[in-house]
Amino acid sequence: MPEPQQAGPVSGIRTVAAVGTGVIGAGWVAYFLSRGLRVRAWDPAPDAADTLRRIVDAAWPALTELGLAEGADPHAVELFPTVAEAVAGAGFVQESAPEDLALKRSLLAELAAATGPDVVVASSTSGFPMTDMAQEIDDAAGAARLVVGHPFNPPYLIPLVEVVGGERTAAWVVSRAAEFYRHIGKSVIEMDRELPGFIANRLQEAIWREALHMVAEGEATPEEIDRSITDGPGLRWPVHGPCLTFHLAGGEGGMAHMLDHFGPSLKAPWTRLDAPELTTALRDDMVAGAEVSAGGRPMAELVAERDRAVIAVRRAVEAARAAGRS
Amino acid sequence: MPEPQQAGPVSGIRTVAAVGTGVIGAGWVAYFLSRGLRVRAWDPAPDAADTLRRIVDAAWPALTELGLAEGADPHAVELFPTVAEAVAGAGFVQESAPEDLALKRSLLAELAAATGPDVVVASSTSGFPMTDMAQEIDDAAGAARLVVGHPFNPPYLIPLVEVVGGERTAAWVVSRAAEFYRHIGKSVIEMDRELPGFIANRLQEAIWREALHMVAEGEATPEEIDRSITDGPGLRWPVHGPCLTFHLAGGEGGMAHMLDHFGPSLKAPWTRLDAPELTTALRDDMVAGAEVSAGGRPMAELVAERDRAVIAVRRAVEAARAAGRS
Repeated sequence: MPEPQQAGPVSGIRTVAAVGTGVIGAGWVAYFLSRGLRVRAWDPAPDAADTLRRIVDAAWPALTELGLAEGADPHAVELFPTVAEAVAGAGFVQESAPEDLALKRSLLAELAAATGPDVVVASSTSGFPMTDMAQEIDDAAGAARLVVGHPFNPPYLIPLVEVVGGERTAAWVVSRAAEFYRHIGKSVIEMDRELPGFIANRLQEAIWREALHMVAEGEATPEEIDRSITDGPGLRWPVHGPCLTFHLAGGEGGMAHMLDHFGPSLKAPWTRLDAPELTTALRDDMVAGAEVSAGGRPMAELVAERDRAVIAVRRAVEAARAAGRS
Repeated sequence: MPEPQQAGPVSGIRTVAAVGTGVIGAGWVAYFLSRGLRVRAWDPAPDAADTLRRIVDAAWPALTELGLAEGADPHAVELFPTVAEAVAGAGFVQESAPEDLALKRSLLAELAAATGPDVVVASSTSGFPMTDMAQEIDDAAGAARLVVGHPFNPPYLIPLVEVVGGERTAAWVVSRAAEFYRHIGKSVIEMDRELPGFIANRLQEAIWREALHMVAEGEATPEEIDRSITDGPGLRWPVHGPCLTFHLAGGEGGMAHMLDHFGPSLKAPWTRLDAPELTTALRDDMVAGAEVSAGGRPMAELVAERDRAVIAVRRAVEAARAAGRS
């Protein structure tokens, strides 16, 4: 299904619809507004207007600190009584209804029907594959415009958005959603297949489940688990992800040395999750991938970057904590 | 086995021995020096002196930035030709030899024999239980003074130290090691049992293994995995660990709401690691533990702290990256 000509460049999208304005939806609204967009919103809760106003107002100082786009206006949002009115004239729709499959199905069907052939409808779902959510939609062209655009809480501060289509999503819709999010300053991962938990939540869930096992067995308390991260590897993760971290752990030999030398420790019972077989193909993929993450920078430069960042992150967190106590 | 009277307060420890001065050992040396301690070191590598000097010099600007103790001197370290000479007069010994069980066993036996009855000998091992490392030592009093003091790389920047004894370690040795590390500014977790991977590495390893599985199956690239953390949940982890993060995810109801509401998603295939059964006991432990991590602070204050910290962390990482490019 080719991209409709009338869609135009994503920079032409000046009005966005936010369908569902709870914590995640209103966080999206705050972010859209900070990028200078106008927002048309819908939410069935009786106190929706108050909640939306409160969340946007609470987010605005942070967004101001991060830098507003020209013309950004925290009041450029209007709630409408119906979904159809909310999406009228919107160039992009972000659906953030509660995680209830039946509800998402009916709402997405309504959104597919109520929007034009050039409008992408993205769902904030953190768990449902679009294939499941769109399966009851008869209109193929409508289903083709539905895509997952999964943010992280709070959406106005965490840059990551995971974009993935369902079986019936058109390729141009996945690309256009990714392009739109990048245009408004998000860090986008475009996935080529539906995977339960997408990427970041699978990794986060692995930590969480190991943590639950440890508490269940009396091996550690939640406070110890939290501190083992905040005062330990968590200080490195905002600058270097898990792969680049282990690239550095390999010293000058990097990921290749790490895997060749410490590969056998993958058999050790260091977590309840068994590791995959460290095949030559996997080893080579990890080595090549670490090089991509490293961006061709030599080890000394990566180490210096990590050290600078860890110091700055420690200072930043200390200041943020102290501000709360004062 | 009671603490010997001559041990005295940990503040009386002015000289420390560093046995093994590779990346971890020399990182410890840099940290000890920054705290105003004198260090006696030993390492069998022919270029040990150059490596040690290089690592201490490279770490010193960072340590200066974080704040030096009075009298801190980057040159207050001396390498000795034998282990016995290095530990002579030292009030605490940190062993950081390569991760080789046979080597650790013989070195720790030597250290137990060469040190006085009031000296704690801590091992930087990231994997071996002290029970295994000490099992061949005949001298019970010597074995009683051996404990794991597991740091994170780089030891001069990451505060976490996991302290855990083996079956033969005396209780006062575990307490004294923890007390000494706290005295020099470390964040200490005192574990009451030996657990493969301790705490932080079990959690880190869970992420790492899920990441390896994803690459092996072609579900994500290492670069995507890294970015999903650095631009996603990794931005929250220096301020709130995994338990407190999920406490916030529960909104005003906190961890209790999160578990009661999203408990069923623990059955979802969101990672390859199965979750434990969410028993009432586990649920209550997590709720109580989240309250400890929260330190009695109301949700709005935690959210504000997270937001301030995430902004500051983003700025800190951007600045650290930009400094490397300039």
